Amino acid sequence: MLRRQLQLTRLRVGVWHPSSRPFTHSRRVAVRAKPQDTSARFPHVKRGQFAEVTSEDVNMFRNILSKESKVLSSSDELDGYNTDWIGIAKGNSQLVLRPQTTKEVSACAQVLQLPPSCRRTPGGKHRVGILVCQAGCVLASLEDHLTDAELMMPIDLGSKGSCRIGGNVSTNAGGLRLLRYGSLHGSVLGVEAVLANGDIVDCLSTMRKDNTGYDMKQLFIGSEGTLGVVTAVSILCPVRPKSTQVAFLGCESFDMVQRILWQAKQMLSETLSAFEFLDAQSMTCNEENLGLKNPLKESPFYVLVEVSGSNSNHDEEKLNAFLQSVMDKSLVLDGTLATGISKIQELWQLRERITESLLADGYNYKYDISLPLTHYYDVVQVMRERLRDRVTRVVAYGHVGDGNLHLNVTTPQYSAEVAQLIEPFLYEYTSKCRGSISAEHGMGLMKNRYLHYSKSDAAIRLMRSVKTLMDPHGILNPYKTLPPDT
Amino acid sequence: MLRRQLQLTRLRVGVWHPSSRPFTHSRRVAVRAKPQDTSARFPHVKRGQFAEVTSEDVNMFRNILSKESKVLSSSDELDGYNTDWIGIAKGNSQLVLRPQTTKEVSACAQVLQLPPSCRRTPGGKHRVGILVCQAGCVLASLEDHLTDAELMMPIDLGSKGSCRIGGNVSTNAGGLRLLRYGSLHGSVLGVEAVLANGDIVDCLSTMRKDNTGYDMKQLFIGSEGTLGVVTAVSILCPVRPKSTQVAFLGCESFDMVQRILWQAKQMLSETLSAFEFLDAQSMTCNEENLGLKNPLKESPFYVLVEVSGSNSNHDEEKLNAFLQSVMDKSLVLDGTLATGISKIQELWQLRERITESLLADGYNYKYDISLPLTHYYDVVQVMRERLRDRVTRVVAYGHVGDGNLHLNVTTPQYSAEVAQLIEPFLYEYTSKCRGSISAEHGMGLMKNRYLHYSKSDAAIRLMRSVKTLMDPHGILNPYKTLPPDT
Repeated sequence: MLRRQLQLTRLRVGVWHPSSRPFTHSRRVAVRAKPQDTSARFPHVKRGQFAEVTSEDVNMFRNILSKESKVLSSSDELDGYNTDWIGIAKGNSQLVLRPQTTKEVSACAQVLQLPPSCRRTPGGKHRVGILVCQAGCVLASLEDHLTDAELMMPIDLGSKGSCRIGGNVSTNAGGLRLLRYGSLHGSVLGVEAVLANGDIVDCLSTMRKDNTGYDMKQLFIGSEGTLGVVTAVSILCPVRPKSTQVAFLGCESFDMVQRILWQAKQMLSETLSAFEFLDAQSMTCNEENLGLKNPLKESPFYVLVEVSGSNSNHDEEKLNAFLQSVMDKSLVLDGTLATGISKIQELWQLRERITESLLADGYNYKYDISLPLTHYYDVVQVMRERLRDRVTRVVAYGHVGDGNLHLNVTTPQYSAEVAQLIEPFLYEYTSKCRGSISAEHGMGLMKNRYLHYSKSDAAIRLMRSVKTLMDPHGILNPYKTLPPDT
Repeated sequence: MLRRQLQLTRLRVGVWHPSSRPFTHSRRVAVRAKPQDTSARFPHVKRGQFAEVTSEDVNMFRNILSKESKVLSSSDELDGYNTDWIGIAKGNSQLVLRPQTTKEVSACAQVLQLPPSCRRTPGGKHRVGILVCQAGCVLASLEDHLTDAELMMPIDLGSKGSCRIGGNVSTNAGGLRLLRYGSLHGSVLGVEAVLANGDIVDCLSTMRKDNTGYDMKQLFIGSEGTLGVVTAVSILCPVRPKSTQVAFLGCESFDMVQRILWQAKQMLSETLSAFEFLDAQSMTCNEENLGLKNPLKESPFYVLVEVSGSNSNHDEEKLNAFLQSVMDKSLVLDGTLATGISKIQELWQLRERITESLLADGYNYKYDISLPLTHYYDVVQVMRERLRDRVTRVVAYGHVGDGNLHLNVTTPQYSAEVAQLIEPFLYEYTSKCRGSISAEHGMGLMKNRYLHYSKSDAAIRLMRSVKTLMDPHGILNPYKTLPPDT
């Protein structure tokens, strides 16, 4: 019997990955050519048997939901939900629901067993460093909201102007502050989620410590909306640093990058708040495609070191001692220091806008792997050797302080030949180094069949049994995260 | 049909709570009178139908396990495993297994579906700030092991000399460093666990970031061994601070304690590594029962503030500015500062040895709750009013920086009347304040029936379904964590 479900309806929260929207609204790039249908690009995915959406379904949802909620069904309205901005995926949803409250989410799930969208209103409130808010709050609004209280969000992403906290939690987004403030598994104190059966699970603890029963909220962090729809979260927010300073350094080899990192951990210690890297090819892409200016003389590698703390004199003194030390040891070729906000932002955009600059090349093959630092950059050289002039460029940048590498390949248009040269080779390579084939972007539809490169059979069996337990009919974000059934 | 199981066999790892062993071996208190049988003290627990241990069982285990592993069955050998040192619980295990490897743990579980013990050998190894070790490693040994590498464990407990990392992870132990380095849900990067069916789940990632599939390791953190036996862990270890300084302050009211905390968060910020409190009654107990000396003039409340960092001059300057500020605002009555190790340890033992000092009063009713700071100390006054001269004392101390209160009541012997005056009243009170009835000690056998005071019905239903999925025969640490079936 066909279940009364809608096959490809998208959620804004819990399905859309925050890193797929990395711009603030003001600098979104021009609309690009529509990508191929996902069902054609990923033909290996065996689709389920779901009912088509009827006009009765649409009317039923209009009755269930309040006036403020939205039921979108015209193709114009659906377009933005069906296409990702980066031009990789194109879905075929016929209906998008945007309920306003947790109860409405639950009603939708109960009646039609449907994963719907979440509330937009930025209605956060906080108390002694703990923020409680609905899933639909935009990350940047929450950040603004906390400023007066001298607090900040423990997470920061390039996409903060558009991504929502429910999506951040559902995808366990990492981002720029992870090095200092840790992952969301540590800083999310509570989650409210709606299960596939409509049950509202209130684990919205506002206590920093709570060992009562199993920590069920963890299941919703990073499971990409496949185990439940996150509708509200509570988050531990650190005190906002009073001072921030950034050093941007050029160096000769990746070995030097590692040695600078170790020096930073030792000498900057509790004040170190970011350690990012980009290679010369990333810098060239910034220059060619966005006209950004390299503030240093050309170097094979660049690192961005940020310190922040409660006393600018102390931070500056530590940073100067660190810089002196890396110069004395001849670890750097060139460097610049920024203390003012505008200069700091200028340096940061060299790292933050690489994703944007790559888009101008055409099609992007995006990889996001974790590797032991000893193998970290080798993989980039190997890929260059493998792909040669079939591609426009192979660039690497990322959160090297966390062992997280963003490896990107570009071509003018999508090339199946290039795709097949990269996958599964890159995953096999990563697996041999005992790395993770997805550090922060998740598995989604594109990587789920490669899960065995990072997880054992027993672990995957356990995941699958949890999925079957919590979503027996497979209605929550179908075809994602776990490998297709064989 | 009776399953071939052993009813009350204890695990050292995964069942024994680290906080139940809070002394280093050198200062364990004298053996006290044996407590009542747990089955008599907690008659509400409906026991399952498990088979008795036979000599054939014992022989079978001797055959399965290697020479180095232990099979303990004489009453002398079992005594220490059946009785907790604090005199609350007395089990009735007839057999204790101490396998040496993960495979042996799995073999035990497969053949007899039994939860066994874990390897003692402190065989940890670390790489760029990530430690991988077996579950049986003693916390203090790991700490020692990391010292040479200028790293440290992200967790510290009074019981570090005897507790094991597998137990720390299984119970999500909190402790003294949580304020700075966060909970184990954030700092444990990987877990290897043996499931009830003998499957070995290898989620022993050594990557700081890994979003491949569901984060299954989280299920083993804090589930008290009821979902699987943790056999190995990998942990992110922070850089060891080069400098540590401690201020010990007396103040007039709990309101002052809160204001000092806020001031510390603002002014000490990234260097703040502990913020603990004890009340006057705790200090009196230290003095009367252990002969410890109060370094300050008598005050209703005491706080211990620790800073640590990479530059002792900077830390000292921040600490002095903070002290000046709390004195200017008349928040403190008296204070003392320690920079040398022995003086720091002297101050710390005023906080760390309270548990030990309370034991000398006789029977201890121990509570470990999280409360919003606005209600934090009220509950202590309410309990004093309620219990009056039926008890020796009501004391409170704890990790106030994390909102975690250790409330303890003492009487010469166990009194059912006192127990009934405390429970469930205290849990109802905590629940009304939206606190947690167990911040770090877990639910175990004594609190599991009160879980509904902190968790919703839907959340408990979900927990129970996960337990049924992962341990269908209820063989892993039976009767613990979840409320008895009704």
